[in-house]
Amino acid sequence: MNPEEAWFPGRLLELTQHECLELLGGSRVGRVAYSTRTGPVVVPVNYHLDGTDVLLRTAPTTELAHHLGSSELALQVDEFDAFNESGWSVLVRGPAVRVDPYDLPAFLDAPRSWAGGSRPLLIRISGRAISGRRLLPV
Amino acid sequence: MNPEEAWFPGRLLELTQHECLELLGGSRVGRVAYSTRTGPVVVPVNYHLDGTDVLLRTAPTTELAHHLGSSELALQVDEFDAFNESGWSVLVRGPAVRVDPYDLPAFLDAPRSWAGGSRPLLIRISGRAISGRRLLPV
Repeated sequence: MNPEEAWFPGRLLELTQHECLELLGGSRVGRVAYSTRTGPVVVPVNYHLDGTDVLLRTAPTTELAHHLGSSELALQVDEFDAFNESGWSVLVRGPAVRVDPYDLPAFLDAPRSWAGGSRPLLIRISGRAISGRRLLPV
Repeated sequence: MNPEEAWFPGRLLELTQHECLELLGGSRVGRVAYSTRTGPVVVPVNYHLDGTDVLLRTAPTTELAHHLGSSELALQVDEFDAFNESGWSVLVRGPAVRVDPYDLPAFLDAPRSWAGGSRPLLIRISGRAISGRRLLPV
């Protein structure tokens, strides 16, 4: 048995940071996760990649907004092929801060949210740790 | 302005628990989330719905296995339509315990993992809280 198989069982390949950023840049929807006293919460979100950071929007009344500052956040993006039982997944983890839209180099109307309603709170997750894996087709 | 819009901006509809369970039962792949000292971690996983609980497998060497017991877990499943900018998302939250496969009513070879390799550790997340939302097409 190849000793590496203990670390990457099956057809799982670790992605480089470059590959992770390329995959992140090619999608608009992911899931943001935050920790609460009763475990993690994961909700879909539209995002925009800015270098190695991730920008997302929410309303000031959301539970996500209330947990800003008390926990690092994570953004997860993936894609699967159920027929080939393959896919990839990327995770960005890091501290999150509220951003003044006017602090952005040029005002980005990004990320645009699929859902309507006002989401004036712009959040930046600093990509302190970016990792990903690809599950190859059989 | 409809006062409800403040709670469900855009075209977001809260799903009933029955709808959530139906959607969970129709999929095989989701994302399991656990809390760590440096925020939440979210990784794809094959799962099997058992009533209002979720069964999943991992290897005893994974970070997920090490965090069993120290935090409640969450399983998230969703589906999006990028063209219509619509989709749905379901979240199961609750305490997680290690399960002896022989304690299952009839031994289930479920969930079967897309990735190969040995994943002898069977985990049951009790669906203490099950919630979901649907984002309607424009």
